[in-house]
Amino acid sequence: MKEQYKATVAYDGTAYQGWQDNTHAPSIEGTLRKTIEQIVQHPISLEAASRTDSGVHARGQVVTFTSNPLPTNKLHASLNRLLPQDISILSLETATQKFHPSLNAKEKIYIYTIHNSPIPSPFLRRSAWHIPQQLDLNKMRIAATHLIGTHDFRSFTSDTYDNYTRTITSIHIEHIDTTLTIRVTGTSFLYKMVRNIVGTLVEIGRGKRTDISYILASQSRIHAGVCAPPHGLELKAVLY
Amino acid sequence: MKEQYKATVAYDGTAYQGWQDNTHAPSIEGTLRKTIEQIVQHPISLEAASRTDSGVHARGQVVTFTSNPLPTNKLHASLNRLLPQDISILSLETATQKFHPSLNAKEKIYIYTIHNSPIPSPFLRRSAWHIPQQLDLNKMRIAATHLIGTHDFRSFTSDTYDNYTRTITSIHIEHIDTTLTIRVTGTSFLYKMVRNIVGTLVEIGRGKRTDISYILASQSRIHAGVCAPPHGLELKAVLY
Repeated sequence: MKEQYKATVAYDGTAYQGWQDNTHAPSIEGTLRKTIEQIVQHPISLEAASRTDSGVHARGQVVTFTSNPLPTNKLHASLNRLLPQDISILSLETATQKFHPSLNAKEKIYIYTIHNSPIPSPFLRRSAWHIPQQLDLNKMRIAATHLIGTHDFRSFTSDTYDNYTRTITSIHIEHIDTTLTIRVTGTSFLYKMVRNIVGTLVEIGRGKRTDISYILASQSRIHAGVCAPPHGLELKAVLY
Repeated sequence: MKEQYKATVAYDGTAYQGWQDNTHAPSIEGTLRKTIEQIVQHPISLEAASRTDSGVHARGQVVTFTSNPLPTNKLHASLNRLLPQDISILSLETATQKFHPSLNAKEKIYIYTIHNSPIPSPFLRRSAWHIPQQLDLNKMRIAATHLIGTHDFRSFTSDTYDNYTRTITSIHIEHIDTTLTIRVTGTSFLYKMVRNIVGTLVEIGRGKRTDISYILASQSRIHAGVCAPPHGLELKAVLY
């Protein structure tokens, strides 16, 4: 009798080529899989709520695997003992075999952090995009409201899909001292969609662009702004 | 006519063998000195408020150097452009030749950060000491009060001095979520004194030790607790 486990995972993505297993560079999936296999002593496969890109972080990635049954507490402790310091299992529980971390996800919350200061910070260089120029928050907030709802988000991805329609349920922009956070919540996202939205909002905040409705309606990637760098992005939570 | 400059410097000490210049490994002093020399085009020497140890961070180190006069704004911008991302000049101003960052310091504030949680955090691993065991904050706070004032702190250093008398003006212990910060303010400190104090307070918090008055009075390093690891410590500010 096999058991399915559901893990909530945090990671600093700096040293990894993203979530997905590959042959040429360390991945979160590969590192996690090998560590679990070392404990359970048989091959496993992992499913994740989100295939985070190279350099992107997570505070609440949700991952499942099926293995021979082991006491949850012991498995949890062994995992954190064996994993490298930049990956941590925040919680581990058993789940029904029907549960799928991506297909069952109702909403995903991403947070993008910008360090908005003329002076760079040695302590934020791995977790925030440093922007020395002034940003007009009001303009960014107004632009963000145009993205909320169900739209064709083709302008905000460079990848090819059958269907580009996605739903963004909220975008909150907060500013505390020199730290600006953009929290984007949605049902699912296209490839690099959050980073392309953030890059476009930043250009609007700098006065380099104005009309986000036009960008959205154009359905063409060339009209949107730059892709924000990966190290400012984290998968905050997945809601079921 | 030479000018003396006073810089407030922040650094992530992870990659450095501490402040002090040496021949065998990268130091903050060496990196900063070479970058300044690259701009001013002549040899300089640096004075610092505190010779932080290997792995220790700073958010408010104060440093002086004397060079050919240059516009402060331009020098500041050039420095931050040329310095590695883990060192940043927060502010730069001219100072009188009499000003000395260490000799004129009235107080130094150090902050030691502990991540007190059963689960390690990938995001705090370079800046906080991870302690999974429960800590009795009340015991730690009471013990800390015994260290405030002017005492012989021989029990809290392994180095040799003519005079071990130092003054601690305050120790504040704060706990927010899983983060515990110990802020130690004093006029000057013995080698590794803050880390030895923190290590001792943690052992008191874990119930492994009780009598800090005895440790202080014993004037012997063997009676104090372990030296807390360097990566939890930062020089927060120097007051003049």
